Amino acid sequence: MKRVAIVAIILAATAFTVRAQQQVKPENQIKYRKAAYTLMNLNYSSLAAMAEDKKPFDKDEAARNAEFVALLSTVPKNYFGEGTDKDTKAKPEIWTHRADFDAKMDKMVGEAAKMPAVVRSGDMAAFKKEVGDLGAACKACHDDFRAK
Amino acid sequence: MKRVAIVAIILAATAFTVRAQQQVKPENQIKYRKAAYTLMNLNYSSLAAMAEDKKPFDKDEAARNAEFVALLSTVPKNYFGEGTDKDTKAKPEIWTHRADFDAKMDKMVGEAAKMPAVVRSGDMAAFKKEVGDLGAACKACHDDFRAK
Repeated sequence: MKRVAIVAIILAATAFTVRAQQQVKPENQIKYRKAAYTLMNLNYSSLAAMAEDKKPFDKDEAARNAEFVALLSTVPKNYFGEGTDKDTKAKPEIWTHRADFDAKMDKMVGEAAKMPAVVRSGDMAAFKKEVGDLGAACKACHDDFRAK
Repeated sequence: MKRVAIVAIILAATAFTVRAQQQVKPENQIKYRKAAYTLMNLNYSSLAAMAEDKKPFDKDEAARNAEFVALLSTVPKNYFGEGTDKDTKAKPEIWTHRADFDAKMDKMVGEAAKMPAVVRSGDMAAFKKEVGDLGAACKACHDDFRAK
């Protein structure tokens, strides 16, 4: 996917946020964000295994993982609306410290957006760095806003 | 996303299938395919609402929905491996009539792959037709292979 397409998708995702939260039932919001995290984890784990030489680097598979991560990363933010703080590992701090949560979420989305181009470049040092940067962005939010 | 990129991703997905089924725990396979269907339903519903004039056609949102559907459509087939017939709406016929199941799944993946280009073309008649064709491909598999 071209950078311009990815940027367009992320902008569309942002515009979509407010509407999404207003219209979707809390239990469905939780379902959607969990589904996105589940598939992000699946695809990120594959990239991390390649970055850590736990499985061979396969450019096609990595590209597919990267496209997935970039697209899926834009989903969860839309679904932390009102009433979605029950039956979830999401901590109450998300709603009391929303600006910090949003900033950490945006950082993660930004790192994920870089991944497809980094994979396509074939620069393994850059790939390993980006896998680390994205992982750190995930962890930063999990540390503060996700219950164990 | 360019057509060539979509084709490459689908081919990579196919190569990935056998390995995926062999290595992933049944309960995780079920989790992954359900997550993919959940987000496919979310994105397809948006496209269908636009096609049926239940909400205004928004090209950016439709493009995002279409990219999602195309990519997500390639996931479930990887995760109907052995032992994944418990705690699921998946009917036993998937495993006793696998060739038919696979053919219906491939048909759906093929229709989903067309959606991004159709949305970008801005041809509303083609868009409405493709939404119908994809919906029919989903339904064909659900009718035979998904419990109510």
